[in-house]
This record gives sequence, C-alpha cells and structure tokens, in this order.
Amino acid sequence: MPGEQPRGHNLVKLNTNENPFGPSPKVIEAIRHAADDRLRLYPVPDGGLLRQTIADYHDVEIKHVFVGNGSDEVLAHVFHGLFKHDLPIFFPDITYSFYPVYCQLYDIDYRQIPLAGDFSLKVSDYLQPNGGIIFPNPNAPTGRPLSVSEIDVLLQKNTGSVVVIDEAYVDFGGESAVQLTKHYPNLLVTQTLSKSRSLAGMRIGFAIGDAALIEALVRVKDSFNSYPLDSLAIAAGVAAFEDEAYFASCQQKVIAAREDVTQAMQALGFDVLPSAANFVFARHADYDAAKLAQALREAGIIVRHFKKPRIEQFLRITIGTTEQNRLLLAELARLL
Amino acid sequence: MPGEQPRGHNLVKLNTNENPFGPSPKVIEAIRHAADDRLRLYPVPDGGLLRQTIADYHDVEIKHVFVGNGSDEVLAHVFHGLFKHDLPIFFPDITYSFYPVYCQLYDIDYRQIPLAGDFSLKVSDYLQPNGGIIFPNPNAPTGRPLSVSEIDVLLQKNTGSVVVIDEAYVDFGGESAVQLTKHYPNLLVTQTLSKSRSLAGMRIGFAIGDAALIEALVRVKDSFNSYPLDSLAIAAGVAAFEDEAYFASCQQKVIAAREDVTQAMQALGFDVLPSAANFVFARHADYDAAKLAQALREAGIIVRHFKKPRIEQFLRITIGTTEQNRLLLAELARLL
Repeated sequence: MPGEQPRGHNLVKLNTNENPFGPSPKVIEAIRHAADDRLRLYPVPDGGLLRQTIADYHDVEIKHVFVGNGSDEVLAHVFHGLFKHDLPIFFPDITYSFYPVYCQLYDIDYRQIPLAGDFSLKVSDYLQPNGGIIFPNPNAPTGRPLSVSEIDVLLQKNTGSVVVIDEAYVDFGGESAVQLTKHYPNLLVTQTLSKSRSLAGMRIGFAIGDAALIEALVRVKDSFNSYPLDSLAIAAGVAAFEDEAYFASCQQKVIAAREDVTQAMQALGFDVLPSAANFVFARHADYDAAKLAQALREAGIIVRHFKKPRIEQFLRITIGTTEQNRLLLAELARLL
Repeated sequence: MPGEQPRGHNLVKLNTNENPFGPSPKVIEAIRHAADDRLRLYPVPDGGLLRQTIADYHDVEIKHVFVGNGSDEVLAHVFHGLFKHDLPIFFPDITYSFYPVYCQLYDIDYRQIPLAGDFSLKVSDYLQPNGGIIFPNPNAPTGRPLSVSEIDVLLQKNTGSVVVIDEAYVDFGGESAVQLTKHYPNLLVTQTLSKSRSLAGMRIGFAIGDAALIEALVRVKDSFNSYPLDSLAIAAGVAAFEDEAYFASCQQKVIAAREDVTQAMQALGFDVLPSAANFVFARHADYDAAKLAQALREAGIIVRHFKKPRIEQFLRITIGTTEQNRLLLAELARLL
C-alpha cells in the first residue's frame, strides 16, 4: 500500500518521497501549451516523442525504451511479462513493498533474500537458479546503494533469467546500470519521473533494456491499455528531460540537504543508514520508532514507519525543503 | 489493436471515434489551473473529487464508482477481477476487439455469441450458464443500441454471474443502464470521457456498480498501480462533468450530424445500420469496402475497415465536423 496522502492541512509531509521542489517551469509551460483542443484526440500509443527523448537522454535506441503510467505500471508489466513462473523470483527481504503484491497478483512464486546485518545487499546471495531477480538501487526503504561493478558481477554470473534494477531513486547519488543494458540482454532498468523530476502527479515511468525485453513489455501493454500515457504526461515528460539545468539544481539541493539532515540526526543520536536516495532511514537506540512517528505526527510532521520485522525501529524520512528539514530537526531535538 | 494515429498530416481522421469538437473551455482552464508546483505530489490514489463528481452526476454513492486510466484500463481490471474462470464468459461475435485480447491476457475462456442477421443483439441468446457477460451498448463497431428494458430482462434471468455493459458510446443516443445498478448487484456499467466528453487525450474511464464489485476492482487496482489517474486528468474530468451545457451542445451536434451523414450515405446507396453512437457502420452492395477505404485514404480521408468475417464489407466512419463530413460525402459521391 502507498503512503497516506493527507490533503488540505498545513502538514510537513515527509512520508512519500516526493521532491520538495516543484517541476521545472518549462514543464508547466509545456503542459499549458499542450492543453487545448488536441485533447479530443487519443495520445500517441507508444509514448512517441517522450520515448525518443528518453532514448536520446540515456544514449540508447528508441527500441530499447518502454514508457508507462508511472513506474508502478511498468513494474506490473515486468512481473506479468518477464518473470518465469517455474522458479521463484528473488528480491531482498527488505525492499519495495509492491514486489510481493505483484507476485500475488500474477501468481508468481518468490523468495526473499535477507539483506546483510548492515542492510547491504550481497549479490553473491543471488547466485542460485531463479525465475528472475529484482531490487531497487538504491534500495528502498534503506536508501543503501549498490555499485554498478557489483551489478556487473551479478550479471556475469546470472545469465539465465531477467534481472531488473529499479532505479526510482538513482538520481540522488546512485550509479545507474542503464549503460550495462548494452552488454547484458537480460538486464532491464526502470526509472521514474516522480522523484528526481518532481512529477509524481503526472505518472510517468520507463524501462530501458534489450529490444526483446521491451517487445515483451509492449505485448503486455498492448493487451492491457493501448494508450497508458496521456498527452499532457508525454508533453511534461519531454520538457522535464530538456531542462537539465533545473534537474541538476534540484538534485544537488536534495543531496546537500540529505547530508545536512544526516549529520544533524547523527548529532541527535540517530543511527542513519548511508543513503543515496531522497530520504534517510534511521533508528534511535533509546526511542521507539512507532512512538516517535506518532509524536512527530502530533506536531504536524508525517514520516513513514513500517511495522515489519527487522525495520520496525526505523523511520523513513523524506528530504524536504530547508524549512521542512529545519522543522523536523527542531521537533526531533524537542522530543529526544 | 487500436486504430492508427497518423500525425502531422492534413488528414480527415474519421477512424478512431474521437469527438470532432474539443473539450469544454472550462476543462482547459481547469488543467492550466492545476498545472503548478503541486505536480510534485502524488495524485489522490482513488480519484478523489472525480469519483465524487461522477457519483453525484449519476446519482449514486461514491462507493459505487471506480475510476481508471481510460476505460480500457477499467475493462482490463474487470476481466482480471470480476470474471470467473470455471465457465466461459460470453460476448458477441462482432464487438469491441479488445475483449478477446483481455481473455488471452488473463487466461479466461470465452464464447462468442453470434449477433442476429441484422446485427442486433438478442438477450435470449445469453441465457445459458456463463462466467460473465460483456457487451458494449450501443455495440461497436455496429453502433446498434439495446434498450434498457432488454438489459433488464437479461438481468432478471442471469443472476449468477457479472454482467458488464460497456457504455463507451451511450451519450450519443443510447439508454444508460446505470440506474439498474441499484437493483442488480451483478451489474457493472463502464463509461469513458474519451468520446462524448472529448477527452481521449486524457485517459479517463469509470465503472458504476454494487459496492462489492467496486471493491473487487479496487483490490486489483491497488495491486497494480496505486495512482492510475494523474492530477491533471482528475482536474479535467471534474470540469468536464461540471460543464453540462457544453457537453449537451456537442452531443446534439454529433447526433444531428450522424443523421445527416446517414441520410446522405443512404442516398448514395449505402446500407447504414441504425446507429446510436458517434459513428456509422455501412456497406455498399456494389463496392468492395476495403477498396473503398483505400480510395478514401488516397484522398486523405481515413476510415476504419475490419478484415473480419461478417463485417468485411462494412466501413466504420466516425462523425466529424460539418466540413469533414462534407468532404467525406463529396469523396464518396465522386468514387461511387
């Protein structure tokens, strides 16, 4: 289930990893420009110019790009179309909570591979026969990144099933495996415009991989919904990739703020996992996470707490604006 | 597969049943108003205000409304979540081409029930054990409507499986079965904003039915994509329902034009099925439909031809603007 979406309140909303900065002004302009009589027409079925823009941006051919209505839809089609059903697929025990949901929806057997004690992912744990492998990089909700050289090792040794790297958070300091798709036909990389491009409200995700993988995704998509991306999402997505300066500026501000928040929380006694995402995952030896989340909520600050084994003493806190981060840290200091 | 979407040419595009009129100016205004920094946030997961607006418009409770990313996505979830797999589902032999595609995607057995010789649908043909029933009303691509009293007869006699009435075209002269959902817990009605509300480019569809049916759809949706409708689609949909005067005006213009086109084509010797949709389905005793479609294409007029048994001598022609219809009729007169 997604994080809650409270509306209409004066809340500091640090629970769903949205970007604290709005989309590029050029994106807003592109949407307003595209909002006219042409909306009576169906969109381009395959994402058209957006697909080409993503291909150009990532230096791949258009046949290596698939676009969907948010990366959740892309992932749903991945589970439906790319994972084999004769062997379990593998993903970490602590990871994006939607993976087991997709498995249940499409009747896919899975095995959860425990992360190490420090919540790092060891690719050596994945080298057994499997029906597919998927994990986020950086991982969620831990924020811990894996290097591309480790992913390369995994791909050298796992050649018989599809490996999906879910790079929802990669732009905040991770290393992208996109270029590895040119060497490994069983590698698919997914990304989203919801986080680093500030477009959660527009629902745009994509995948990059070998043409055969993309064709398999297109087959599922064409049997599900001919036109998953509306015309304004296509226009917004194109404009987002065209404004690299704005993207880089927001990216740097979030990364700098994450380092500040990390240090300040450490100074308050938190154990903060090393994060390459737009959130931190942290615990405090002396304070119960659920109670802390509740106390923050009473002060109008919403963070995410998972009632799950191994991580029930952690809070996942999205990096907000300077003012939001200040309010968070002040309230934590008051509570501790 | 969807109809082709040629772009960038000066074509008379009468092949995908788009509305010849743009969306309400209030819809454009609502989109431009909603296009701001708030796009950094996720949309309301359940469609929020749009769901309530549809409920109010159709005089049902919000728990009876489901919204999705175009009615194709709604239908996909219907096939996945509501049809039983132990008995075949029933739909007409001539109908929306996506139904067998969904059956293949979700491994659902189906039986195609032949339409009568005049392409009308006889509900008495559907009174056998089944895993579900679905058909468009008016039917596509024939355009022929079924009365609500006939649907009532079907529902009185078919109480053991879900009956889905796909009302994509109902606003152009059909009778909606929405109010019957209050009496039959196994009835689901789907509609779209793509045709009568001129919003094909925005991808908005919905379903109305008993709360248990809606809950089943929500379960599938929540396992597939938490946020299927983007924030601008929600804003556009709400505004579309609020501008009833514009809707009614476009509706009446399309209906009047359809009657004009029908009469003019009959005068040219076409056999035109009685249509309650925004298209006509017609054949000519002396001219091959495929050749006629090709000749029209060469004149820059795109219509739809299906290479399918029983209907391969028909053309499906969307009602266009007055000027587009004039060009169509002039070209047909020249060709015949």
